[in-house]
Amino acid sequence: MNMIDIISKKRDNLTLTKEEIEFFINGYVKGLIPDYQVSSLLMAIFLNGLNDEETIYLTDSMLHSGEVMDLSKIEGIKADKHSTGGVGDKVSLVLGPIIASFGVKLAKMSGRGLGHTGGTLDKLESIPGFNINISGTRFINQVNTIGLAIVGQTQNLVPADKLLYALRDVTATVDSIPLIASSIMSKKLASGADIIVLDVKVGSGAFMKNIDDALKLSNLMVKIGKKFNKHVSCIITDMDEPLGLAIGNNLEVIEAVNTLKGNGPKDLLEVTMKIAAKILIKAKLYKTEKDANEAILEHINNGTALKKLKDMIAAQDGDNSPIFDTNLFPKSKYIYEVKSKKKGYITHMDALKLGVASMHMGAGRLKKEDPINFNVGIVLNKKTNDYVNINDTLCYLHMDKIDEDMIKEVYDAYTFGDKKVEFKTIFEEVD
Amino acid sequence: MNMIDIISKKRDNLTLTKEEIEFFINGYVKGLIPDYQVSSLLMAIFLNGLNDEETIYLTDSMLHSGEVMDLSKIEGIKADKHSTGGVGDKVSLVLGPIIASFGVKLAKMSGRGLGHTGGTLDKLESIPGFNINISGTRFINQVNTIGLAIVGQTQNLVPADKLLYALRDVTATVDSIPLIASSIMSKKLASGADIIVLDVKVGSGAFMKNIDDALKLSNLMVKIGKKFNKHVSCIITDMDEPLGLAIGNNLEVIEAVNTLKGNGPKDLLEVTMKIAAKILIKAKLYKTEKDANEAILEHINNGTALKKLKDMIAAQDGDNSPIFDTNLFPKSKYIYEVKSKKKGYITHMDALKLGVASMHMGAGRLKKEDPINFNVGIVLNKKTNDYVNINDTLCYLHMDKIDEDMIKEVYDAYTFGDKKVEFKTIFEEVD
Repeated sequence: MNMIDIISKKRDNLTLTKEEIEFFINGYVKGLIPDYQVSSLLMAIFLNGLNDEETIYLTDSMLHSGEVMDLSKIEGIKADKHSTGGVGDKVSLVLGPIIASFGVKLAKMSGRGLGHTGGTLDKLESIPGFNINISGTRFINQVNTIGLAIVGQTQNLVPADKLLYALRDVTATVDSIPLIASSIMSKKLASGADIIVLDVKVGSGAFMKNIDDALKLSNLMVKIGKKFNKHVSCIITDMDEPLGLAIGNNLEVIEAVNTLKGNGPKDLLEVTMKIAAKILIKAKLYKTEKDANEAILEHINNGTALKKLKDMIAAQDGDNSPIFDTNLFPKSKYIYEVKSKKKGYITHMDALKLGVASMHMGAGRLKKEDPINFNVGIVLNKKTNDYVNINDTLCYLHMDKIDEDMIKEVYDAYTFGDKKVEFKTIFEEVD
Repeated sequence: MNMIDIISKKRDNLTLTKEEIEFFINGYVKGLIPDYQVSSLLMAIFLNGLNDEETIYLTDSMLHSGEVMDLSKIEGIKADKHSTGGVGDKVSLVLGPIIASFGVKLAKMSGRGLGHTGGTLDKLESIPGFNINISGTRFINQVNTIGLAIVGQTQNLVPADKLLYALRDVTATVDSIPLIASSIMSKKLASGADIIVLDVKVGSGAFMKNIDDALKLSNLMVKIGKKFNKHVSCIITDMDEPLGLAIGNNLEVIEAVNTLKGNGPKDLLEVTMKIAAKILIKAKLYKTEKDANEAILEHINNGTALKKLKDMIAAQDGDNSPIFDTNLFPKSKYIYEVKSKKKGYITHMDALKLGVASMHMGAGRLKKEDPINFNVGIVLNKKTNDYVNINDTLCYLHMDKIDEDMIKEVYDAYTFGDKKVEFKTIFEEVD
């Protein structure tokens, strides 16, 4: 078996065998196959595709390219949640405490933000003292004790994905459904949970630009899950506008806290409850979504969900006093009010443009090694289909210096119209 | 401009601009663009193609990636000839002396053999003392004096092609018509001749497996030639069986000498005369192919063509005494007679298999750094459509040790049948 024959087969639109896919992944991880052969194969896969079976073999090879988490020492049912990435997506920070408050365990490994998308780890690190480097016995013990831990990904989890993703990023081979599916699923399967809910984002701020592609990706991931005997569900949700109102690290933590206190934005609550209900039903705690939703709202209203967040922060060396009083979070130097120059309905607020503007303010990274400013970002005052008059406040920019370029970038994200547009937060569910 | 955007465009089947193609070639040659991005683009080009304009831009960028030969100090008309590679193809050794005997200059840079295909440089080096490292003034002077020189390619001629070809070879992106056309044409244009005839081989022993692809390649190369104001013609010839009877370095030189003495195999003479006549007509020495052919045969019969070969060998430090008596060439230890085990018409003699067998005997290289044995190879006794009885001699293997595996490889190259098959040496001419 050799790599040139494997590339030729995929180039000629033939089907790769399990052994050929294993040869490629194992050889690449061991450094025996050079980047230039892998990138040639990736482009052939991008253009000719992989069938479902090949994608399952690829997922399996990637999954076993490194450590596979053993969560058997965690008692009870373990759930996991993953979003394909977006702007203002702080669902994990709200969801984890909710499901933990029902006794369903969340032993979650998260990532950092890159480009216009934020990362849960960065958001958590905006809480003073919060430690994302919890591993081994301490991680297991924390989940067993308080039901919840969100930590950085183990270095040796799916090394094949780290290598492939870095290469795809610089060879224009990112947006391939089978490559995205195998990347996500290999990591989720390696993380060891029993119940997995995937939030597939669609829109200007997401990888997937249309619902058809998102449906294909979702169906494929559910199919892969079945092959590995895991409960995998997907929801397809909007990322044409940001989720919730806050974009930026501690601004998003504050919004998550407010949501757990019953004062969250409608769309954030809707997505979080949809995922939470799916998990509680799969965990056989409730039979219907209605029952699950009532219980979730009760856990928000009686503070048991918020308590889990406070416990997690304390367990991970963080200062949880700002949870009681969010004014204790450090603040940016300025809050700039962006006032509308037009009147009408907001027909689009481009999540990508707002994410990029927020990154430019310092809330995100252009390159992996860039530092982050935890206190800056954008808080929206109006959302899609809201009517605004001239001089109404569109949003607040939390900045450490007033920069006209960024203000312009934010204005450019808005489109106005005479009438409302069709808009949905949740498009589809795939189980 | 950046490489990821360029890859994305070709991936999405869009047309690249002249500037984008120059950015890619210049950046690659300067080492600013890594192999893994180039191989991803090459696969996108392989699968989505390049239109004629893109191919011309690519040829132009490659052509100017290094030195362009200035043959202006060579008086008269300069011709060049190139074959896409095959088994037993010693046309250059016969053609050069013929056209030089008419005063048309051949200042040719050739390559070495790799895999099953032989290389003109290796064949010439089988002549004791022959020096292929003639460059600069000496090269120009030799062509001005005797009308003919065949030398190794200057190191800095089309460096982009050297880099790209090495990468294509290991990333399954060799067999792409626009990439082949730009590779051949950039080198031929950089070599500086006025008249260029390309021999596009088709069949088991060639890159091109069918006449349709060979026609596409030929039309494209003629079109590129026109853009650069050069007379480019192509002939499409058979490489399903080897050309002539001899395969292997000094065995092929002997056959070339015999052909220049009027005792050559019919197919070799046919291909050589077709190319020579095209050059003589383009050089305005003859008006019709019939007139040119008569003159060529006269130059063979009266020894003026052979004299040019002798002069060239002497000018390039070689011993030309074996030209007078080919028995003076060093010989292999054994000559093994391969006798037919079947009777019937030879319906196919696989050029690839015979080329590989000859390589295994030592006449060729599997890797660039492998040594060559100049004295070994195969001399055919029968060719396609010859009738053979059991025990008739199919061919003679010139070997330094008798190896049963190689004998078996040679037998495997033959197919027999009850009746003759359709067979042509020259399929098409494209001008």
